[in-house]
Amino acid sequence: MTPAGGAIAGDEQTVAALGEFGLIAALSGWLRSISPADARTLVGIGDDAAVLAAPDGRVVASTDFLLEGRHFRRDTSSGADVGHKAAARSLIDVAAMGAVPTGLLVALAAPPDLPVTWARDLTEGLAAECARAGATVVGGDTARAGSVLLATTVLGDLAGRAPVLRSGAAPGDQVAVTGPLGHSAAGLALLEAAQTEGPLVAAHRRPQPPYDAGPQAADLGATAMIDISDGLLADLGHIASASGVRIDLSSDRLSPGEGLQAAARFFLGRTERGSGPEHTRALAWVLTGGEDHALAATFKPDTALPPRWTVVGQVSDGLGVLVDGQAWAGEAGWDHFRG
Amino acid sequence: MTPAGGAIAGDEQTVAALGEFGLIAALSGWLRSISPADARTLVGIGDDAAVLAAPDGRVVASTDFLLEGRHFRRDTSSGADVGHKAAARSLIDVAAMGAVPTGLLVALAAPPDLPVTWARDLTEGLAAECARAGATVVGGDTARAGSVLLATTVLGDLAGRAPVLRSGAAPGDQVAVTGPLGHSAAGLALLEAAQTEGPLVAAHRRPQPPYDAGPQAADLGATAMIDISDGLLADLGHIASASGVRIDLSSDRLSPGEGLQAAARFFLGRTERGSGPEHTRALAWVLTGGEDHALAATFKPDTALPPRWTVVGQVSDGLGVLVDGQAWAGEAGWDHFRG
Repeated sequence: MTPAGGAIAGDEQTVAALGEFGLIAALSGWLRSISPADARTLVGIGDDAAVLAAPDGRVVASTDFLLEGRHFRRDTSSGADVGHKAAARSLIDVAAMGAVPTGLLVALAAPPDLPVTWARDLTEGLAAECARAGATVVGGDTARAGSVLLATTVLGDLAGRAPVLRSGAAPGDQVAVTGPLGHSAAGLALLEAAQTEGPLVAAHRRPQPPYDAGPQAADLGATAMIDISDGLLADLGHIASASGVRIDLSSDRLSPGEGLQAAARFFLGRTERGSGPEHTRALAWVLTGGEDHALAATFKPDTALPPRWTVVGQVSDGLGVLVDGQAWAGEAGWDHFRG
Repeated sequence: MTPAGGAIAGDEQTVAALGEFGLIAALSGWLRSISPADARTLVGIGDDAAVLAAPDGRVVASTDFLLEGRHFRRDTSSGADVGHKAAARSLIDVAAMGAVPTGLLVALAAPPDLPVTWARDLTEGLAAECARAGATVVGGDTARAGSVLLATTVLGDLAGRAPVLRSGAAPGDQVAVTGPLGHSAAGLALLEAAQTEGPLVAAHRRPQPPYDAGPQAADLGATAMIDISDGLLADLGHIASASGVRIDLSSDRLSPGEGLQAAARFFLGRTERGSGPEHTRALAWVLTGGEDHALAATFKPDTALPPRWTVVGQVSDGLGVLVDGQAWAGEAGWDHFRG
């Protein structure tokens, strides 16, 4: 979409000029013009609450923050990027239960000087990412704040499936992943080093979670599942802890692709390929980088997995997560209060 | 509950010391110890998403922000007050559709130096207000921020009722309200004038919305309903606008109680009762004060209303909201971007 519609910088309409009800009307209008009507949305935006169909008599729900200065920066991500990212973080949470996302509620707090065009681009990003997952934006809230704050809540439908919890992994199970690992973290490192283009930076700005792999894993009998938001080691640690098992990863199954290795060479100041330090640096992104929102799941040993799932390890008796039989020496993942 | 457990001020444990996963574990533990297990919560806190029963095949959902410095101040409201208020604002939204609240998702962003006791009191307030409404806290998110940010999402069950929208009011309908009007606004004015005690201040700190009146109104055939969050005139304006009707209020049906009149006397510097300016000032709170989260609904002319509902006006052909046949001269309500 056109970012600023040709408006002159400094002369743009702000959300303060629209006012609260004007902003709500504008957001609703944009969404109506973008998103086709969805039969599952019985009451959409514009009333005290939304009403969604929950055909199997259960609803899956999860909520997430995406905060300016903490999870994104407006100088390095567009409104549309932020919309895609906010929706993606939430939508994948219900997929990680084995459900199909149906609706998204979006609370947006904005500074009064936020350009209306930024809010419109945000809305378009939210709607487009929902469309990728088969969901629609069904409601929200607005408020005034010193920076852009987003809280997104996703609702989903299990369609008769049992929810796939973190606690069902058992010794002998295979551990498999689908979706990129470490791309967002490497992209963020590149952005912070003033590298503003390329596929890893794009993966940081707009992660593309594998939504449909969640219900697929449930149908394949996944015993546990989680989305990788804090890093593979940290999130598999949640499965290991909830299931009371040990997870053994094989680093040769997690070999970083050429893109990650090239990024590692950039930071190491090298030009030739194939060094050990470069591989170690790239592997650290794979093991500890969050926010790609790939899926990790455990499956019974005899489960034949489709090609999109890569087996990266095994469940055994014990505790914790090991890489090639050892505890990983680096940072385990992301802690929002210490990071 | 004991507020600080005898800890010495300045020596209190902070959420930074707990870390993200420690805080999540603490919040979950407090909630488990406070809230009884609820059969409708199929998967609760601790996984990628919650799973709730949606017995009638539909789910009602609404999301709201409650932001420090914008909606509350930590120097005038306790953690428990803020928990009650955050939950109340959301829970009443599904009641205003005619539904029973079932679950609440809570996203909490906190500064690293937030005392753990404050977070515990907040959790207790959230759980207690959910219990008032018959719901439980089923999930959430945490993040780090410069101030306390809460985003609450409520889910509810219509139990076979048709949702009561804003758009169903028709000429001839009665307009009725239940719950306090103007108390929170008067309480905030008193707080800002350094009056820190009394029932109006308490109403500002902890509004007590009439949750069960929402499903009751739906059962009585309410044609439209809304909760009063922006002010009676503003919120009835939403019904008038969505329904394409005019609403005529009678000020003698909205007569402010002695508490509001006493508060008005305080600001007018008067001691004797019964002056015109005092009545006008108190009536302004009734008409424009939001955040009590009373309910306003329209009913067919022949509906016999239970005593808790007070008829305050009528629906007719036309547009807008009038008081005694005239447009109200003061501020219409609260606009978050202009306020």
